[in-house]
Order: sequence, then C-alpha cells, then structure tokens
Amino acid sequence: METNQPIDSYSGYLHLDRLLDCQRPRSGQAEQAVHDEMLFIITHQSCELWFKQILHDMRSVADILHDVPSGSSLPDTAVVRSRRIAAVVRHLTDQCGILETMDPCDYADFRGLLYPISAFQSVQFRKIEILFGVRREQQVLYDGYAHSSRIPVADRDELRRMEEEPTLFDRVQSWLERLPFLEVGGYSFRRAYQDAVRRMLGREREAIRENEAFSALEKQKYLVETSTVEERFDTLFDPERYREIAATGRRRFSHRAMLAALFIMVYHDRPRLQTSRRLLDALIDIDEALALWRYHHALMAHRMIGEKIGSGGSSGFHYLKSTAENRRVYTDLTALATYLIPRTDRPALDPHVLHMLDGEISP
Amino acid sequence: METNQPIDSYSGYLHLDRLLDCQRPRSGQAEQAVHDEMLFIITHQSCELWFKQILHDMRSVADILHDVPSGSSLPDTAVVRSRRIAAVVRHLTDQCGILETMDPCDYADFRGLLYPISAFQSVQFRKIEILFGVRREQQVLYDGYAHSSRIPVADRDELRRMEEEPTLFDRVQSWLERLPFLEVGGYSFRRAYQDAVRRMLGREREAIRENEAFSALEKQKYLVETSTVEERFDTLFDPERYREIAATGRRRFSHRAMLAALFIMVYHDRPRLQTSRRLLDALIDIDEALALWRYHHALMAHRMIGEKIGSGGSSGFHYLKSTAENRRVYTDLTALATYLIPRTDRPALDPHVLHMLDGEISP
Amino acid sequence: METNQPIDSYSGYLHLDRLLDCQRPRSGQAEQAVHDEMLFIITHQSCELWFKQILHDMRSVADILHDVPSGSSLPDTAVVRSRRIAAVVRHLTDQCGILETMDPCDYADFRGLLYPISAFQSVQFRKIEILFGVRREQQVLYDGYAHSSRIPVADRDELRRMEEEPTLFDRVQSWLERLPFLEVGGYSFRRAYQDAVRRMLGREREAIRENEAFSALEKQKYLVETSTVEERFDTLFDPERYREIAATGRRRFSHRAMLAALFIMVYHDRPRLQTSRRLLDALIDIDEALALWRYHHALMAHRMIGEKIGSGGSSGFHYLKSTAENRRVYTDLTALATYLIPRTDRPALDPHVLHMLDGEISP
Amino acid sequence: METNQPIDSYSGYLHLDRLLDCQRPRSGQAEQAVHDEMLFIITHQSCELWFKQILHDMRSVADILHDVPSGSSLPDTAVVRSRRIAAVVRHLTDQCGILETMDPCDYADFRGLLYPISAFQSVQFRKIEILFGVRREQQVLYDGYAHSSRIPVADRDELRRMEEEPTLFDRVQSWLERLPFLEVGGYSFRRAYQDAVRRMLGREREAIRENEAFSALEKQKYLVETSTVEERFDTLFDPERYREIAATGRRRFSHRAMLAALFIMVYHDRPRLQTSRRLLDALIDIDEALALWRYHHALMAHRMIGEKIGSGGSSGFHYLKSTAENRRVYTDLTALATYLIPRTDRPALDPHVLHMLDGEISP
Repeated sequence: METNQPIDSYSGYLHLDRLLDCQRPRSGQAEQAVHDEMLFIITHQSCELWFKQILHDMRSVADILHDVPSGSSLPDTAVVRSRRIAAVVRHLTDQCGILETMDPCDYADFRGLLYPISAFQSVQFRKIEILFGVRREQQVLYDGYAHSSRIPVADRDELRRMEEEPTLFDRVQSWLERLPFLEVGGYSFRRAYQDAVRRMLGREREAIRENEAFSALEKQKYLVETSTVEERFDTLFDPERYREIAATGRRRFSHRAMLAALFIMVYHDRPRLQTSRRLLDALIDIDEALALWRYHHALMAHRMIGEKIGSGGSSGFHYLKSTAENRRVYTDLTALATYLIPRTDRPALDPHVLHMLDGEISP
Repeated sequence: METNQPIDSYSGYLHLDRLLDCQRPRSGQAEQAVHDEMLFIITHQSCELWFKQILHDMRSVADILHDVPSGSSLPDTAVVRSRRIAAVVRHLTDQCGILETMDPCDYADFRGLLYPISAFQSVQFRKIEILFGVRREQQVLYDGYAHSSRIPVADRDELRRMEEEPTLFDRVQSWLERLPFLEVGGYSFRRAYQDAVRRMLGREREAIRENEAFSALEKQKYLVETSTVEERFDTLFDPERYREIAATGRRRFSHRAMLAALFIMVYHDRPRLQTSRRLLDALIDIDEALALWRYHHALMAHRMIGEKIGSGGSSGFHYLKSTAENRRVYTDLTALATYLIPRTDRPALDPHVLHMLDGEISP
Repeated sequence: METNQPIDSYSGYLHLDRLLDCQRPRSGQAEQAVHDEMLFIITHQSCELWFKQILHDMRSVADILHDVPSGSSLPDTAVVRSRRIAAVVRHLTDQCGILETMDPCDYADFRGLLYPISAFQSVQFRKIEILFGVRREQQVLYDGYAHSSRIPVADRDELRRMEEEPTLFDRVQSWLERLPFLEVGGYSFRRAYQDAVRRMLGREREAIRENEAFSALEKQKYLVETSTVEERFDTLFDPERYREIAATGRRRFSHRAMLAALFIMVYHDRPRLQTSRRLLDALIDIDEALALWRYHHALMAHRMIGEKIGSGGSSGFHYLKSTAENRRVYTDLTALATYLIPRTDRPALDPHVLHMLDGEISP
Repeated sequence: METNQPIDSYSGYLHLDRLLDCQRPRSGQAEQAVHDEMLFIITHQSCELWFKQILHDMRSVADILHDVPSGSSLPDTAVVRSRRIAAVVRHLTDQCGILETMDPCDYADFRGLLYPISAFQSVQFRKIEILFGVRREQQVLYDGYAHSSRIPVADRDELRRMEEEPTLFDRVQSWLERLPFLEVGGYSFRRAYQDAVRRMLGREREAIRENEAFSALEKQKYLVETSTVEERFDTLFDPERYREIAATGRRRFSHRAMLAALFIMVYHDRPRLQTSRRLLDALIDIDEALALWRYHHALMAHRMIGEKIGSGGSSGFHYLKSTAENRRVYTDLTALATYLIPRTDRPALDPHVLHMLDGEISP
C-alpha cells in the first residue's frame, strides 16, 4: 500500500489519506446529496473497525486458554482482553444513539439507493459470531441467501473454514475440562456438593414440618417446593439427567465443564481461582453485551424503517429482535447461579485440594 | 414530619437524617451481615426516587397536552420533560451495571431472607406503566396474585382509580386528533399523500416494465413487490383496512390520530410543527428506553438467580424478557417510518394550510 | 479509487477492503508484535472517522445560521445536528475508557516506536477547533513547532485559509445580531430588563431595611451585597462597561449578540424562540462535551505515560489538562445564567414585539 | 423507626413510606410550585444514597488491606469493591446530564429560596474525601466557614475524628510497604531495575554516537535527552532525591511503598501479583472518576448559575473546577508509568523471589 504521507507522521501511521477517502455517499456529493448518508456510512465503518479489534482480542483469548497448562493460574491477560471485548460491544451499543439522531424522513431520502446492500453481509460480524461460538443453526444462513447476500466467494470459504476450527467456546470448554480439582483421591466435588444440598434441604424440610404456624396444607405445599428444588439440582448432579437436558439444547457445555465452572464459582475466593472466576464473568459480560447490542440495534432498525422489510431482504426488525435471545452462547454460565447455595451451607474443601489450590504442591 | 436538622441546612432540606436511616439489611448489621445487601437496598431505593421524578414529569406532560389549544404550537416544556423521562430511564439502565458487580454467590447468601419480597410489588412502577399507557391486559395482573404480592389495599385502590383516568397515551391521542390541518377546505392530507404514493409507484412500475435488463420473470416479480408496497400503504389510507388492523391489536391509535402523527412527521420542517415532531420522537425514546431497561433488567436477573423462580413467585427471567417487547406502548409511532416516502415524492402542502401553519392567520 | 468488491454490496459500499487494510502496527505482525498496538491504531482511526462527521455537521450548522432570514424561526435541523455533534464528542469520551484497558506496561512496549508521531498532528481536529471558534491564541501553535509536528504543507495552508474564513462562532454571532426584537418602536429590551432588575433590587433593599431580625451591621452587609449584584448586571446593561470587560477577554460576543442571546433565553417559551433557545443550549453542550473530552483525554495520557513528555514533544498531560478550560468558546452563553431573574420579576413583553413573535394579536 | 408497611413486603423492606416522603420543595406543592425543584431534590438525594454505598465499600476495602498478611495474595473482593466505587462515581457523573435538563431559567425561579443551603455541606461527601485520603490542606476548610456551612456540631466532631484515623490511603501504603519481595537475600529490586535502565540508556547512547545520519549538534541534543531521562529515573532510585521530591508535595507515598507499587506493576503477570495489580488500577480508576465527576459538576454549576457565587457562599465554579485536579490522591500511582521500560529491557526476576511468588520452583 503506497501512500503520499510520510510514514513517520500521525497521518502516515494511521493511513488517513486512504481511511478518510472511503466515504462515498450514493446520494452524491453536491446539491442532491442527502446530508445524513455520511452519518450512515461513518457509523458502519466505525463498527467494522471495532469488529477488527474484537476479532483480534477474541483470537488471542482463545489462544491463551488453549496454552494454559492444567491446574495453572489463568493469565490475567485473558480477562483483560475479554473485558475489553465487552467494553467495545457496549461502546457500539452506545453508538446506536448517535445513528438515531437521523430522522427516519432523512433515511427515507436515500434508503432506496442502498438496495440490495445489507448489514447482514458483514463478514467480520459473521466471523465474530462463529469464533465466539454461535452455532451454525443459530446463525443467519448465509448460504441460504448467498445470491442476494453478495458475500464474495473467498469470504464465504473462509467463513466455512472457521466453522470447522475450534472456537472460543471450544477453548473455554476444554480449559474447564482440564481443571484438576474435581476428583482428587477420594474427593469428589460433585458428591460433596450434592451432600451439602441434601443436608440443606433436609433442614428445611424439618423446619417446615415442625413449624406450628403452618396448616397441614401449607406444610404439604412447602414440602413439594423443596422437592422441586432437589430435582433442579439433580439435573446437574446426575450425569444421566444432565445428558437428557443437554440433548434438548438447554445445556451445551459437557457435564465435566459445567461442574468445573461451578467449582470455580463456588470456591473463587481461593487465589488460584480468582482469575478463572473473572474470565467466566467476562464471558457472561460479552454474551450480555451482544444481546443488548442486538436488541438496541433491532429497536433502532424498527424506528428507521418501521415495518418495512430490511434493505437486504431480511424480514426486518422482528427477525432482529429474535436474535438477541436466540444467539446467546454462554447461557450455561449464566445458569450456574441456579445451583448456588448460601456460603454457610457449602461443603468445605478437601484438605488435599486446598493444598493443591494454594499452590505449595502440584498434583 | 419533624426532624432534628435545621431546615435551612443542606441535610435539613434533603431530610437526610431520615433518608439515610431507611437502609435496614435483613442479614443484620454486624458479623453475620452480608456486605452486598446494602448495595441491593440502595439500588432499589435509588430507583424508587427516580420513579417519583418520572411520575412527576409524566403527569405534567399529560397536563400540558390536555391544555394546548387546537392548532397552537406545543410548549417546548412538554418535550424537555419527556426527554428527561427517557434520560432517567437510561440512567436506571446504567444502574443495572452497578448491581451486576454483586457476585451471584453473594446474592445467594441473603436471597433466602428476602422471601416473599419482590420488585414486582413496586407501586410506583405500576403507576408509571398505567400512566404511560400500558393496558391492563399487558400488565402483570396484580389482582391475580394480590395475596402474595402484598401490595397494600390502599395502593391497589389507587392503581385501579388510575386505570379509569385518562393516561398520557389518551392525552397524546386526543392532542393529535385536534390537529386542524388534515382536512381544510377542499384539501385532504390523506388523499394528497395517497395520490403521491400512487404516482411514485406508477413511475416505479413504468421503470420496471421498460427496463430491458430484466427478464419477463424478473419484471413480474418486481411488479408484484410494488403491489405489496401499495397494500401496505392502504392499511393506513383506507379507514376500513385500518380498523381491521386495529382490531387485531396491531394498531392502537385512532385513524385520525395516526394520520395526524404522519402529517407532523412529514411536514416537520414547518416551524409550528417542530416541537410536535420532537414530542413524538421523545415518546418513542421513552418507549425504547423502557424496553431496553426491561431487557437489561431481565439479563441481570438471569445472571443473579439463574433459572430459579423470582423471589416473589414470578416465573423468572423468561417472563421478564417477554415484557421488554410486550409492554411497548407507542409502536404506532415507531411504525410511522413504514409510510415515509422520499422528499422528492411528497405532496406539496396546500397553500391555505401552509398559511395556517406559518401562523399569519388562524383558522 | 478502484476496488475489488462489487459496489452494490455492503463491503463495496463501505470500501471495507481498503478501510480494513489501514491498520499497520509498527511493532510488526508476527512474534514481535505488541498485541495492543492494534487497539491504539483503531482507537485513533475511529476518532478520525468521527472527526469527519463532526466537520460535516458543523459546516452545515454554520451554513444554516448564515442563511436564516432575520426574525425567522431557526430550522430545527440546526439543533438536531448540533446536538449530534455533542453526542459524537461524548461518544469519543466514552472511547477513552476502552483505550484505558491497555496496560501502561503494554504501551511502554511500543511507545518508543511511535516517535515522533503525535495526536497533536491531527489536521481534522485542528479544523474542528478553528471552525468551532477556538481562536489562534488559544490553539496549539502548529506553526511554532511546524518542523516537529510534521503536518504536510498543503494541510497547513488549508488550516491557515480556514482561519481567515467565518467560523461557526461568527455565524452564531451575526445570527444573534440580526434578531429584530431588541429595539422595536419605543421598546428597548435592555432598558425594560434593567428596570425590572432595579425594581427587584429595590424591593430587596426595602425588605432588608424593614427586617427587625437583622442588626444594623447585618443590614449594612446585605445592602452592600445588593449593590454588588447591581454592578454585576451593569456589566451587561452598560455598553461602556461591557466593552471594558470584553477588552479583558472575559467576553467575546458583541454587546448586541449578548443581549439577543439573553432575550432568547428569557422569552424562550414563545414558540418562535424555542428552536433558537435549543441551539444556544446545544452550543453549550458541545463546548462542555469538548471540555470533558479534553479532560478525560488528559487523564488517560497521564495514566499511560506518567510524567514523561508526549511522544510528539508536547509538555504532556499538564498541557493537555490546561486546554480543557482554556479552549472553551461559548462561555459567554454559559455566563448568561448570571443575568437571570425569577419569572415573577421579569418584564412583560412589549405588545408589538409579542405580535411580531406570535404572528397574531393576543387578547 | 416504626412504619405502617408490612416488613415482609417490598415497600416495607425498602421503607418507601419514609423514603418517598422526604421530598419537600421549598417553592411549595400547589400553584406556586416550581416544577423542577423536585428534580433538584431527587438528584441530590440519589447522590446521598450512593455516597452511603461508597462509604460502605471504601471502609471494607481499607479493612481488607489492613488484614491481608504480608506476601499473601490480595482477596479479589478488594478489587471488586474498589471497581464498584469507581462505577458508582461514574454513575453519579452520568446523573449530571439529567440535572442539566433543568433550564437555568427554571433554576432562577427557586434558587433564591435555597439560601444558605449548599452542597458543600454534604457530610457524607466530606467523609468520602477524608477516607479516600484527601488531606486536610486539600479540603474545603469546613471549620473556616463553620457558621455559614451549618454542618451540625456532632457531624463536625465525627469528621475531625475520621481525620485522626487511618484512611484508605494509609492502608494502601502500609500494605505496599509489607510486600516482601523487594529485598530478598542478595537481591534488590531497586538495584536490579536501576541497572536495567542504565543498560538500556547505554545502548541508546551508543546508537546515537554511531548513527552517521546525525550531525554533531543532533548527537549532542539526543545525548542530553538521555541524561534527562536518567535523572528522571534517579528521582525514584535515589532515596535522597525521592525525599526531596516528596518534600515538595509532588510525591506522597513512602519510598518503599512506591517501589513496591512499581514492582507489582512490572511483574504483574505473576499470578500472585495479578490481584494486587488490579487494585492499583482500581484506585487510579476511582481517582480519575472523582476528578471527572468534580469537573463535570463544575461545568454544570457554571451553566446553572453562570458567574454568580454559589448558594452557600462559595466562590462558584472557578473554585469547583480547581478541585478536580487539586484533590487527587493517588497521582503517585498514575506517575508510575513514568518509570516503565519495554519488557525486553526489564530485569529478570531473581530465582528465589520467583519461587516465593509462584510457590514452587520453576525449571
């Protein structure tokens, strides 16, 4: 890439002569120009710049997770970069507010000129979805409307390739599966936690039975409730039950990965688990931020085009809104809160595991 | 209300001795206190303070709309206060990010103590919903679970009373219906706009037929598309069709109010309509902001409690998420963008209406 | 500009092949690459895209103000675009938070490679400052360190040309000066307002003198205070005094423009003045947003480079911080609040002016 | 505190009957009420609620730092709560934007009624300043204008007591001083780092001398620059020089604390130091957030009251603006970036220290 600017100047370093030459409104430059088409272009270009940053960070987090040895502390960099991804997505959501300063009347003045261009054709955003872990069946089927979507063949090939490779989700899962503290000697985290839950529920049942303020009917009702709670815990403790749930699509992580994530969450005050805990948090942050971005984006589209179909032929804002929830990836981590019990009811850590965690002896 | 503070001091003016005495964690104050229950209390109290401000502003906007004479410029105050409501709701959404600094493990430590308290019992938020225009069938049925919800009888009576009174939605609608410019002398906005749309579509059809690059099949396809567009416009122009759509619940404003809103949108560069245009915008802003707030709130609840049921017995986050879209009130205004056509295709204003609008002669 | 992408695709419309090829880290691409240099580049490029949008909107606001006839309502577009500028600047401030996710240790790894590049060399930001109205003496003297700053000659020539042309500040001033309501027939806004202030102060003096709770000493003190207030008002009412103050640099608007701005502020509930009022507000918004951006930017630089000098040779963060306050442009408008009195004390509008304003005789 | 609400209801738990009864506008409730006084009250009350939360978290962070044994990992809770404090301060800054929706004209309508109330009288904010570490000489002298400020005697006594007790700053300092890795066996971090800096500068000098593209004059200039850099490092390495700088007020941490902070920053990729690094970061975050809040608050006050003096008798916005910079507490930590050198130039860790840090022998 040649450039007229001296490379050791601000504009040369940033290649501003080219960067600032990429804004070419279709409505033209002179009298007939629609003033706000510039805003439309710049908003989308700014998004694409940030998409590049997101991909840059997301790839590096996946690599770090791949490289971290079993039982080692997670490098803080993985958390810093994951948090940054969430911050960038929130920044892009904030950007929606700027595009909304465009009056739908102004958009109507140049919208017809854009056909058949659509933001669904963003290759980088597709890459972000794949890398983050959105599954093929959750995605827009870009093969399905390949002709209309006008994604170049080379890009489509690259997207297909990316689908075959390990995603961030895969890296998170295998990193969780490598956690060495779940079964050590005679200790089983799953059994210890299950016992603690049973003790807790046992005490609750006794309290209900002995409470003289309750009628027989009330006692029965509350006892049924504790059974419901117990069944909910069984969907995690019982590998069979877990597999059933997973088969319905309600869980995606392997059973082992899920138990490891719960272990990290429950014992996250141990120094060696703190960074791991923060990573799980940051993944939920990204997942949430993407959902909010999609939802805000859908509201904005609704406001700009009303109930018309999208310029690229999509079914419009109803479709967009549905993606906010349908494309979430890390809901298994969000669901962990379901299985938390008060600190006072939690099982103490096995002394040997404690020893491993606090770092004086490696397994 | 007596107070120990001198009334002419900062703390006396703000009644800080009482205000700062309302935080009473159930987990207690000393050793057994759960540190983050304070955050939980303060977040909710701050919300309630702002709810009071929203009600204060919303009532005043409704009053202003009620009082403004037909054909007069809308006082700017209505817009300023409506925008403020949207800003407050966005501020409360931002606040979700603070509550999310609480670890679900910490919440698990005091969550059991809160039963059967639930934020669904917020009377002020219920009032905001009613006043804004959320209909009874869109609301949580607080009679339905009156026993569990523990809203005091006096409050329930007041809520019922508010449902009988005119809401902001009603005030907006009758203000729109009073707009005197839709039918003046021989001029009919509806007819003029409909003619303009037909001319535009006629030109498009001719262009399709004469385009030699299109095959016969393509021509047919594109001609069918223009008919679809025409039908979409008919749902607004044809009073019968409009009534049918309205009956399905897809439209809520009266036909006249809807046409008035479109008139304001299309001719909003006339000085007399600018403030009116801004009000419609601000109402969409509030509607959007509330939807985003509900959605973010649902994500936060999901993160804190996982898939458990809500502390007040609600069906949890799935329910919360559904409200984001189901309780929108001003989607008719958002839908107006459906009916916008490029400026070059719009009908010129009738000279007499122009005269009325520019203010030299009153009707 | 030739491109490989089909022009009627998303990537072709946005020229993504070029846009996404402008990120060339100096630390390289492979092993020796410093991961966070990408963030550094993308943050600055995103800023430059938005600077282009700001210039686009700012020029158009200046043009609108130039074209609006004396006494006409200001087109709402001027306000919408001014508000948008403020929103964009706030968005860029938010972006500081993203760059701050870079650890100073990481910045230390590639900072040496950037010499002698500096963000002070941004030509677009210089243009924004000139166009907004920052005066030569408030600016970084880019001639002064022309050699080090490495701004190309052509750009320096253009900046010099822009300094000769009317700025947004000039357009605002002459638009204010054209306001026809200040002196109409025998009515003088200045005199009427001055009289009202005197009446108000007279009443206050009487109240002080007659208040039996005050000692003689207290009475004297409070009476002196009312005289101070009167003198403050005289700095606006008395053209001589105003000229003196303006000569010190504490005021920049002409006396007439300043009185017009006060008139708009005081009578902004008249429909014809509402949009004008909103413009004054939006100008203060931009001025504030720029000050906050500069301040946040200075804090960020402090955090990244500590007390080192800037990479372009500037004296670093102390210099940056000073610009937050030193480069404000519309402080005259902010100062208007000094001259506001309660509504009940304000002079009624002259009937003839009221007629001009409302375009009709009020009863 | 008695209350009419059932304690096991939402409103009972939050004491809403009292909380929502604390808004008593001085302009009254009926006709003569100034609508926006409610906004003024609620904004300040919301601030005070959040001040209580900040104090709650800040005290706990100070306690955690006090309790953590020398050489132990810092509990993550200290970081989470510190980050939360920063988030709350940013939230309050965001709130300024809401108060700015009040027109200065509206404020003029009730401002006179507030005399002599001033936000400077906020006892909680004073406590936050003291606890965070703002020194007496940086603070508003509340004794100085005790009569006008109307802070009750009991509160003034408590503030004085707090000034005698250890602050968060003190706790941070002594926690840093306890870091055991700076001098171990023959290893001295100070000496090792100083040597590395000298080696780096030596290489630079050689490169300058041998660069044939430089003239003799340029060589001299660049060599002088490296000496300036060396002197800057000496202000940290040389205890004498450090004491001199500290005596001028430019440094506040003890020499040992400062070196410990640099050690943490430089070697923060060691697992045991990650949380410590995050705490330093979070303290800078709070310091920055407070500065931005003060600055935004000053801009808002400027806009509302212009150049009048504050309602409590302060010298107004100029004073407020000066506090943004003058009351910063942790600038020593921000200044650490001054002493960072590229990773490739940093001294390797002593094997024994590494062992202490990682709790195991590395190969």
